Amino acid sequence: MPLVGIVMGSDSDLPIMKSAAEILEKFGIDYELTIISAHRSPKRAIEYASTAMERGLEVIIAGAGGAAHLPGVLAAMTPLPVIGVPIKTSALDGIDSLYSIVQMPSGIPVATVSINGAKNAGILAAQILSVVDSGLRQKIVEHKKQLAKDVNDKAVLLEEIGYKEYLAQKEAAKKEPK
Amino acid sequence: MPLVGIVMGSDSDLPIMKSAAEILEKFGIDYELTIISAHRSPKRAIEYASTAMERGLEVIIAGAGGAAHLPGVLAAMTPLPVIGVPIKTSALDGIDSLYSIVQMPSGIPVATVSINGAKNAGILAAQILSVVDSGLRQKIVEHKKQLAKDVNDKAVLLEEIGYKEYLAQKEAAKKEPK
Amino acid sequence: MPLVGIVMGSDSDLPIMKSAAEILEKFGIDYELTIISAHRSPKRAIEYASTAMERGLEVIIAGAGGAAHLPGVLAAMTPLPVIGVPIKTSALDGIDSLYSIVQMPSGIPVATVSINGAKNAGILAAQILSVVDSGLRQKIVEHKKQLAKDVNDKAVLLEEIGYKEYLAQKEAAKKEPK
Amino acid sequence: MPLVGIVMGSDSDLPIMKSAAEILEKFGIDYELTIISAHRSPKRAIEYASTAMERGLEVIIAGAGGAAHLPGVLAAMTPLPVIGVPIKTSALDGIDSLYSIVQMPSGIPVATVSINGAKNAGILAAQILSVVDSGLRQKIVEHKKQLAKDVNDKAVLLEEIGYKEYLAQKEAAKKEPK
Amino acid sequence: MPLVGIVMGSDSDLPIMKSAAEILEKFGIDYELTIISAHRSPKRAIEYASTAMERGLEVIIAGAGGAAHLPGVLAAMTPLPVIGVPIKTSALDGIDSLYSIVQMPSGIPVATVSINGAKNAGILAAQILSVVDSGLRQKIVEHKKQLAKDVNDKAVLLEEIGYKEYLAQKEAAKKEPK
Amino acid sequence: MPLVGIVMGSDSDLPIMKSAAEILEKFGIDYELTIISAHRSPKRAIEYASTAMERGLEVIIAGAGGAAHLPGVLAAMTPLPVIGVPIKTSALDGIDSLYSIVQMPSGIPVATVSINGAKNAGILAAQILSVVDSGLRQKIVEHKKQLAKDVNDKAVLLEEIGYKEYLAQKEAAKKEPK
Amino acid sequence: MPLVGIVMGSDSDLPIMKSAAEILEKFGIDYELTIISAHRSPKRAIEYASTAMERGLEVIIAGAGGAAHLPGVLAAMTPLPVIGVPIKTSALDGIDSLYSIVQMPSGIPVATVSINGAKNAGILAAQILSVVDSGLRQKIVEHKKQLAKDVNDKAVLLEEIGYKEYLAQKEAAKKEPK
Amino acid sequence: MPLVGIVMGSDSDLPIMKSAAEILEKFGIDYELTIISAHRSPKRAIEYASTAMERGLEVIIAGAGGAAHLPGVLAAMTPLPVIGVPIKTSALDGIDSLYSIVQMPSGIPVATVSINGAKNAGILAAQILSVVDSGLRQKIVEHKKQLAKDVNDKAVLLEEIGYKEYLAQKEAAKKEPK
Repeated sequence: MPLVGIVMGSDSDLPIMKSAAEILEKFGIDYELTIISAHRSPKRAIEYASTAMERGLEVIIAGAGGAAHLPGVLAAMTPLPVIGVPIKTSALDGIDSLYSIVQMPSGIPVATVSINGAKNAGILAAQILSVVDSGLRQKIVEHKKQLAKDVNDKAVLLEEIGYKEYLAQKEAAKKEPK
Repeated sequence: MPLVGIVMGSDSDLPIMKSAAEILEKFGIDYELTIISAHRSPKRAIEYASTAMERGLEVIIAGAGGAAHLPGVLAAMTPLPVIGVPIKTSALDGIDSLYSIVQMPSGIPVATVSINGAKNAGILAAQILSVVDSGLRQKIVEHKKQLAKDVNDKAVLLEEIGYKEYLAQKEAAKKEPK
Repeated sequence: MPLVGIVMGSDSDLPIMKSAAEILEKFGIDYELTIISAHRSPKRAIEYASTAMERGLEVIIAGAGGAAHLPGVLAAMTPLPVIGVPIKTSALDGIDSLYSIVQMPSGIPVATVSINGAKNAGILAAQILSVVDSGLRQKIVEHKKQLAKDVNDKAVLLEEIGYKEYLAQKEAAKKEPK
Repeated sequence: MPLVGIVMGSDSDLPIMKSAAEILEKFGIDYELTIISAHRSPKRAIEYASTAMERGLEVIIAGAGGAAHLPGVLAAMTPLPVIGVPIKTSALDGIDSLYSIVQMPSGIPVATVSINGAKNAGILAAQILSVVDSGLRQKIVEHKKQLAKDVNDKAVLLEEIGYKEYLAQKEAAKKEPK
Repeated sequence: MPLVGIVMGSDSDLPIMKSAAEILEKFGIDYELTIISAHRSPKRAIEYASTAMERGLEVIIAGAGGAAHLPGVLAAMTPLPVIGVPIKTSALDGIDSLYSIVQMPSGIPVATVSINGAKNAGILAAQILSVVDSGLRQKIVEHKKQLAKDVNDKAVLLEEIGYKEYLAQKEAAKKEPK
Repeated sequence: MPLVGIVMGSDSDLPIMKSAAEILEKFGIDYELTIISAHRSPKRAIEYASTAMERGLEVIIAGAGGAAHLPGVLAAMTPLPVIGVPIKTSALDGIDSLYSIVQMPSGIPVATVSINGAKNAGILAAQILSVVDSGLRQKIVEHKKQLAKDVNDKAVLLEEIGYKEYLAQKEAAKKEPK
Repeated sequence: MPLVGIVMGSDSDLPIMKSAAEILEKFGIDYELTIISAHRSPKRAIEYASTAMERGLEVIIAGAGGAAHLPGVLAAMTPLPVIGVPIKTSALDGIDSLYSIVQMPSGIPVATVSINGAKNAGILAAQILSVVDSGLRQKIVEHKKQLAKDVNDKAVLLEEIGYKEYLAQKEAAKKEPK
Repeated sequence: MPLVGIVMGSDSDLPIMKSAAEILEKFGIDYELTIISAHRSPKRAIEYASTAMERGLEVIIAGAGGAAHLPGVLAAMTPLPVIGVPIKTSALDGIDSLYSIVQMPSGIPVATVSINGAKNAGILAAQILSVVDSGLRQKIVEHKKQLAKDVNDKAVLLEEIGYKEYLAQKEAAKKEPK
C-alpha cells in the first residue's frame, strides 16, 4: 500500500517529478504517482485529497508551475502533510510557482522545497515517514553519510590532481560513449 | 437576482473589495458579496463555483492575497468569466498575489486587474455585462466622459491658479472638518 | 461581422497571438486580426478604438511587449472590455509587459491574462460573449470537460504503464516523422 | 520530553516565532524553544543539530532572516525533518530569507513555509507528528473544520448585515477597551 | 512663451512633479504645467502632444505612476524629446512605473530619469535647451559647481567637528522652530 | 566636427551600440565612437567628459552593463546631456545595468533608454539636437511617419492574406538565401 | 595616521555609516571619515582615491545609495581594497544600491557587504588589517567569542523563563526611562 | 605554504571558480583549492574553517550557488576575511546565491563580489594580502595599468578603423582555427 502520493499538474512536469519517485524507490518507500490538475481536473483533485488519508497515504508530494495551486488545493482538503515542488516556468523562471506555493495563508501550510527540487521533496517525505520508522531513519543517516563521502572523494581527487587535470578528466568523461 | 458575485478570501480584504460593490451599485448592477477561502473553506468554494451559473450569476469577482488561489479555483469550476483582484500583502506587496492569479495555465483564464484594483474589477464586470445590455454600455460611456471631465476640471484649475496655490488649497482642504 | 478584434503591437507577436485566433475559430466566433502600434502608429490605434463599438465589436484582445501600452491605450478610448496579453520580452522576460498592462489606473481596467497567454485571452473573450449566447456557454462547458478528460486520460495511462514507460513513449513520439 | 525543537537566529525573531509555540501548545505537543545563531554561535548550532535525534526530538522548526542559514545548517547535521520560517527583513522584505532557506541543494531539503509563517510551521510539525499519532491527526481534522467554520460564520454575518454594517462593526470593535 | 511642458497623470503626482517646475524657475526657463491622463483623458493627451511643437514647446516632461503610459503616449505623437518621471507607487514602489516608461519600443524613446526624479527631469530639460542657449549652459556649469561646493562644505564641517557632533547639530536643527 | 559622442564600457557592447551610430548616420548627424571604461580606464573617462563640451560635442551616448557607472561618471563631469543605454547582462538580464544608470542622485540626471536600446538613444540624441536644427526636426517627423507606414503596410498585408499565410511567408523569407 | 578611510555619498548616509566608525574605534583602529559624492563632487572623489595609498590608508569603506557609484569609482583609482556598503533607498529598498555596487566588471572588485551593513564593513576592514597585525586578529577572535556569548546568554535566559516572560521583560525594558 | 584557500560547494562550480586560481597564479600567490559543501559535508566545512588560521591561510574565497551558505558558514568559524562568490543558478540566475551570501547578519561579514565574479575574488584576495606585501601592491598597480592599456588599445584601434571594420575583424578572428 503506497504511503506517499506523488502528483503533478501536467505530464510536462514528469521529467522533473520523476526524481521524487526515484529517491523514494531508493529508500524502499511505496508510492503512487499520477497527474491531477487543480484547474483542468478540479473534481479529481478534490476526490484525491479527500480520500488520501483513508486510502492510507501519509504524505503527498505535489509539483506544479505558474499559478501553481495544486499543492495548496490538496492541502486544503486533507490533514496529511503536503510537500510542494515549484516547477520552473519559461516566463518567470519558477518565481511565480514558488510564490504561489510557499505563500499559503495561516492555517494551511505547504512544505515547500526548491524550484525543481523534486528529489528533495522525496527525501523530505522519507524524513517525515521516519518519525514512525527507525529503519528508514537509519537509511537517511546513511544517505547523509554518502553525500559527505561523495563530496570528500571529489575533493581528494581535486586536491591530488589539480584543477586543470580535474576539468580535463570531466571533459573527457562527457565525450565518452555511454 | 444578482448578476455579479463578489467573493474574497478573508474579511480583512473587505476594505479593498468593497470598492467593487460600490461601483456596481453606481452602475445599478445587482450583486452578492461574501467570504470564501479556497484553503480554509474549500467545500464552500467548490459549491459556490459549481452552482454560480445555475443561480443566474454572469460574472464572478474574486479577491485574494498571498498564494491567492481563490480566483483560479473558482475559474476551474465554472464556465463564467472570473475577474481576479490581487490583494496587497505585507511581505511581498502583492507580487505574490499577482503572480498566483495572473499566471493561470492554458485553458483556464482569470481576468486579472491591478493590485488592490477592486474598483476596476467592478468596472470590468460592468463592461462584460454591457455586451448584453445597451443601457449599461451607455452608462460606461458616460462614466468615461466623467473621468475625462474630472481630469480636465483639475487641469483647468491648476493652470489658472498655479501649482503653489493648488497645493495650498489641497492642503487646506485636508485640514477642514468633515 | 466580427465580434472580437485581435490586435498586436508588432508582427513579431503573431506567433504568440495566433493562439487567440485559433481558439476563437474553434468556438465558432467571428473575429478580425490586425497590427496596431500604440507608439509607432498612434493615430491608427485611436481610430481603431474609437470606432470599435460602432463597428460591432464586443471584445478587444490586445497583445504587446515591453512598455506594453497598447491594451491600455485602446481601453482608454472604448467602452468595450479589453483583454491584455503581456508578450514575453528578451530582457525582462515579460515582467515589464505584465506590469505595463495590469497596473492600470482606477477607472480604466484591462483584463490581463498570463505572459504569452493568448489562448486564454481567446477563451476569456468567449466567456464574455457567452453572457449573451447560451450556445456558446454550452461550448465552454464542453471545453472544460474536455480539459478534464485530457488530464484524466493521461493520468490513467501513466498509472497503468508507470513513469519510465510513459516517458519512453513520449520520447519515442517526439522522434517519429510527422 | 519535547518532540519539537523551535529555534531562531535572534531574540528579535521571537515575536514572530512564538506563534509556532502557541499552536503546538494548542495541539498539546511538547516542545522546546531557544536561540541559536548559525553565524554568531555556530558551535551551539552544530551541537544542537548533532544531538537533536538522540535527545528525542522528531521535528525542528527554525526561523531566520537575511542570509538565513540556520535552517539549512541544522538540516545538514540531522536526519530529522527541518521546517524553515523565513523572517521578514527591513531591506528586502524577507525575499532574501526566503531564497536562503528554500533554495537548498539536492540532498538536504528544508520544508519552507511562508514569510513570517511560524504558525504554519507549527501546524506542519503537527501534521508530521500525526504520522505516528492518530489522536493528533484527529485534532488536525478538527482544526481544519474550525477554520472552515470561522470563515463560514463570518460569511453568514456579512451576507446578513451587508458590508457597510460589517465594516462599521469591525471598526467599532477595534475601538472598544480590551 | 513656454519652452517646457510639464504634465502629470494625476494631481496626486503634483507634490513630486513640482520639483521640475522649481528647478526650471531657478534656471529662468519658461514652462507650462498641467494634468493629462493618458487613460482618463486620452483626447486631451493626443491634442496636447499633436500641437506641442507648433505651440513652441521644445521639451516635454511627463510624470506618471503604475501602468505609466503618459510619457510614451506623448512621445508617440510629437517629434519633441520627452522626459519620463516614474512616480513611486504604493504596491510596487514605482518598479511598474519605471518599466512602463523606460522599456519603450524601438523608434520611440522616452528619456527616463529615476523614480520620483522630477528635479533631475528639470535639469535634463535645461541641458537639452542649452544646446541652443550658451547662457543656459553656463548656468548648468555653475549649478554643478554649486553641487560640488555643497558637498565639500559639509565634508569640511564633518571632518572638523567629527561625526558625533555633526549628527548632534543636525538633530538640533530639526527641532528648531522654522 | 562630431556633435554626438558614443562611448561604451567594452568592445563587447559594440554589436548593441552600433545601432546608435547607424541611426545617427541615417539622420546625417556627425558623431564619434570609442571605448571608455569607467573602472578600467578611469582617467580616460575623466578626460573625455571634461573636454567634451569644448571639443564641440552636444550630446553623449554611453552604454554600459552590470555596475554600469559609465553614463553617470560622464554626467558628473560635463554639463552636456548624457544618454545612458543599459546593456543586457548574462546574470541579471540588464536589471543591474538599468538600476545603475537610471537611479542617479538629485542634481545629475542620465537620460535612460530601454535595455539594449541603443537605436532609441540615437533617436533621442537627434531629438535633442533638433532643438537647434529645424531641418533635423523635419527628418524626425518623417521618421515617425515612416514608422507608422511600416506598421500599416504590415497590417494591410496581414488583413489581406490572413495570419496563416502571413506566417508562412515570413517563414519562407527566413529560409531564402540572402 | 588613519589606516581606514570611511567615505559616503551624502551626509544623509551618516546615521548608517557611523556604525563603521564605532566598530573601528572599538577595535582601536585609526580612521578618517568624510563625505564625497561620485557625481556631485567627482574631482574630490578622484583626488581622494588617487592619493589614498600614499597617504597611508590601507582600506577604504564607501557607502552609497541608488546608482551607488562611489565605491566603484574609488576602486577604479586605487590599488587598495574597497569595501562597499549599499545604503537602503526609499524607492527600491537598496536593491539598486546593491546591484550598482556588487556587479563590478572583471578586474575591479568591490568587497560588498549587506544593505546598510556599515558595522560589518568595519569588521571586514579589521579582518583585512589583521593580516598584518596579530594583536588585531586576537581582538577579532575575542569579538566572535563575545557574539557567541551574547547569543548564549539570551538563550539561557529564554530557556529559563520561557518566551512569555522573556517578551514581557523586553517590552518592559523598552518603556523604562533611559 | 598557501595564503589563500579557494573552496566551492560542488565540482560543478569549478569552471567558474578556477578563474580565482588563475589570477592568484598570475600574482604569484600560493593558494590551495578544494571542494566543501556546507550542507553535504558540514563536518569538513567546520574543520576547514576552524583550522584555517593556524594552517597559515590569510584569506578564504568561497563560491556557492542557490541557498549559498558556504561563505557564511566558513566566516562564522574563522577570524580570517572571507570572500564570497555567488554562483549563477539555473532557476534564479544567481539572485538567490547573491542574497544568501551578501545579506549576512551584523557581526559576521562576507566580502561579496559579483555573480560568477571569481576572478575579482582573486584580485580582492591579492589586494587584502598587499596590506602586508608592498611587492604585491606594486603588481596590483601594474595590473590596473594593464587594464587601462587594454581598453585604450582597443579604443585606438576602433577609432582608427571604424566600427564596421572592427566588428568584421572580431568576427573573422572568431572563425580562425586556434
